[in-house]
Amino acid sequence: MADEEVVRDLLDDARALISEGDWGKAVALLTALHPADLADLVLSLEEERRREFLDHLPTDITAQLFEYAEDDELRDLIRGVGVADLPAVLEEAEADVAADVIQQLGRDDREETLAALDRDEVTDLLQYSDESAGGIMSTGFVSLPEDVTVQQAIDYLRVLRPPSEKAYYIYVVDRDQRLQGTVSIRDLIVSSPRTTLGEITQHDVHAVTTGTDQEQVARTLQRYNLMAVPVVDEEGRLEGVTSADDLFDVAQEEATEDMYRMVGLDEDESTSNRLLRAAWLRLPWLVVNLGTAFVATFILIAFNGTVERAAILFAFAPAIANQAGVTGTQTSTIMVRALALGEARRSLAWIVVREAFIGMGNGFVVGLLLAGVGLAVEQNLTLSLILLVSMTGASTLAAPIGQLVPIALKVMRADPALSSSIFVTMFTDGFSYLFCVVLGAALISRLQA
Amino acid sequence: MADEEVVRDLLDDARALISEGDWGKAVALLTALHPADLADLVLSLEEERRREFLDHLPTDITAQLFEYAEDDELRDLIRGVGVADLPAVLEEAEADVAADVIQQLGRDDREETLAALDRDEVTDLLQYSDESAGGIMSTGFVSLPEDVTVQQAIDYLRVLRPPSEKAYYIYVVDRDQRLQGTVSIRDLIVSSPRTTLGEITQHDVHAVTTGTDQEQVARTLQRYNLMAVPVVDEEGRLEGVTSADDLFDVAQEEATEDMYRMVGLDEDESTSNRLLRAAWLRLPWLVVNLGTAFVATFILIAFNGTVERAAILFAFAPAIANQAGVTGTQTSTIMVRALALGEARRSLAWIVVREAFIGMGNGFVVGLLLAGVGLAVEQNLTLSLILLVSMTGASTLAAPIGQLVPIALKVMRADPALSSSIFVTMFTDGFSYLFCVVLGAALISRLQA
Repeated sequence: MADEEVVRDLLDDARALISEGDWGKAVALLTALHPADLADLVLSLEEERRREFLDHLPTDITAQLFEYAEDDELRDLIRGVGVADLPAVLEEAEADVAADVIQQLGRDDREETLAALDRDEVTDLLQYSDESAGGIMSTGFVSLPEDVTVQQAIDYLRVLRPPSEKAYYIYVVDRDQRLQGTVSIRDLIVSSPRTTLGEITQHDVHAVTTGTDQEQVARTLQRYNLMAVPVVDEEGRLEGVTSADDLFDVAQEEATEDMYRMVGLDEDESTSNRLLRAAWLRLPWLVVNLGTAFVATFILIAFNGTVERAAILFAFAPAIANQAGVTGTQTSTIMVRALALGEARRSLAWIVVREAFIGMGNGFVVGLLLAGVGLAVEQNLTLSLILLVSMTGASTLAAPIGQLVPIALKVMRADPALSSSIFVTMFTDGFSYLFCVVLGAALISRLQA
Repeated sequence: MADEEVVRDLLDDARALISEGDWGKAVALLTALHPADLADLVLSLEEERRREFLDHLPTDITAQLFEYAEDDELRDLIRGVGVADLPAVLEEAEADVAADVIQQLGRDDREETLAALDRDEVTDLLQYSDESAGGIMSTGFVSLPEDVTVQQAIDYLRVLRPPSEKAYYIYVVDRDQRLQGTVSIRDLIVSSPRTTLGEITQHDVHAVTTGTDQEQVARTLQRYNLMAVPVVDEEGRLEGVTSADDLFDVAQEEATEDMYRMVGLDEDESTSNRLLRAAWLRLPWLVVNLGTAFVATFILIAFNGTVERAAILFAFAPAIANQAGVTGTQTSTIMVRALALGEARRSLAWIVVREAFIGMGNGFVVGLLLAGVGLAVEQNLTLSLILLVSMTGASTLAAPIGQLVPIALKVMRADPALSSSIFVTMFTDGFSYLFCVVLGAALISRLQA
């Protein structure tokens, strides 16, 4: 059994050998490792050593590293291998892994590598968009016609020897490669040898088309508790298969993307990005955010006399804005997640009314607390009343607005998560200060008492 | 092949039959549906109809509904079935599903149901914590000793007929049930009948113990691209198996939990919660947030004279606080996600310095924009200078603080996501206003020019 400590010791030994430059021994030691662990080691080396190490690694093992690396780690591995040696490595990789790697290359390198590689299946895969079922599917599936017998299917598998994670289902197809259904390997084993596949085919298959968004494919897998989802073209012909392990990565990526986008981060953001690149990626939405923040600023400029004459009120106003911001961000988080998981099934009116009530109730409770503190500080009932009304009002508006922003983004065919918290706080800041300045201006004489 | 439109038509027909009270026909029509689709239909019925419908549904199909329902939907199904009829239904369910259902019951109902059910495996499963490997594993695995031949294993599977999603691997165990390794069904098929399992066992198995946190189990599956992860006890005896479909749900739940917790939402939050419950769940962190918001308020109260005399500066201060808040929330999002996915591998000093530089650079750029707007509005160079310095300073502090808050929470053994955005904005609001009031107070004579 794999023992984490054993792996760690092995890695330490290997690192020592590498720093001594004993490549032969290091490689011999490390090829026993799981490719996922080896990939971690290789990626942790500094660039020069990584290149040297990959120079000494057999190409079939390097190919496996590509399979276990994350998207943002692929580029480091490519640089380590060198574009010139890439075709030899990709020759040994699964077609979908090779396609993912080639997608990371610049246009010229891409064409040269594809030409040197000369694998049609890889070229075919590259036509699909990155985030579609076609872009993540594997072409290493087992398909057979339905008039084949169980014994023939078993003989076929014995000759083909597909990797075990690819041989979970046999896909049953007609003469034109159109998907008819599946036979699990278990069914093969428990059926009599002369049965035909057609007799034991499960026709109730949840297939997707090559253009289906990867998030939708992951939802299909999750909804029906499947281990794999077949991918067909517009005519129903089987083109590939996406399996649970691919879709697991997809689900994690999509969740990260949503979390990042909500706060205005680029999905390429990573703790390993170079400083300038990280700063540059964040700048655009920060500038947009400044634009949205001006809404509150211009309200305060317009009512500058009120701020001057009731400065104490504007010591409390940021707390109201902060609170409304949290309220709105909470409800927009709920909506973004519900939209991502396909759980949002309520009508717009229902959402607005429900959230407005929740926001009002909680705003009133929190407003009472704020008003109490206000009274303790200033002994002015009018001030406390303004704080209570502003907090309740801002919170009543903030809760439904938080849910409506992602819905509005979706209606405009943008990602519902897209910087939703930035847009939400534009509204919540705006409303909060508006309540304070309008009420403050109207009751200014009582505030100055 | 399953066609979404066909399913939808079928559902419409069934709804019509149900509203006419023709239960016999409706049930006959719907038992052809996939349990996931049927579960959706049942959950969309109003309570009285749901109860009536479940009364007419065969218990084995009701048991399947439980398997496909989310945690928060289980309670609706339990109410629909009625606690008295629950044991008959759970008799037909997988042990892990039955345990999940029983976990939703109150103490008395739980004991009664367990007694009536009388399945030791279910009682055993209930000892494990909800979010541990033991709590999510299934006990329906196939295990065999290593001296069994391939032919004997195939005969065994023919008699056992395990559900196909449970028969992906055969787990090879020694005499004390200690896990030795796995044989995939594919290996069984491609090997000669007289080979023993011991000869084709893969010993490089990534097992977890019953107490392992479910998030860690999901990470293991994802890291090594596995379809299932076996679960052993402290002595290495095989106790159960968690498969990709279970862990897929876990990964989604954990992502939702992190997103919710970051903004101070309870993980039980759902768009289907009753109004009062939803409001109640959100209130505690809103109150905490108010407490954190007072940091800025008390700074503004202390410098109230400055606010009064330089009101125009405090029209711009909320924009700085907002901007610093976004900056801090961005970096804390990156850190929360990196911690969740096990990707955070950098030293604390490196993180702080890197983020401070990014924050300073972007703060300066955005600060220039803000200072420009300030100059256009007020033609006061001192005001613009204060805005530039405050924005740059607040942003320089905000970026590393955003990353440090989740790390600090983790060090204190709390969830790194736990309301991190609330704590982050406490600091960012505080620093932003502090910069403004201190600089404003120092340069007050030039501001009033």
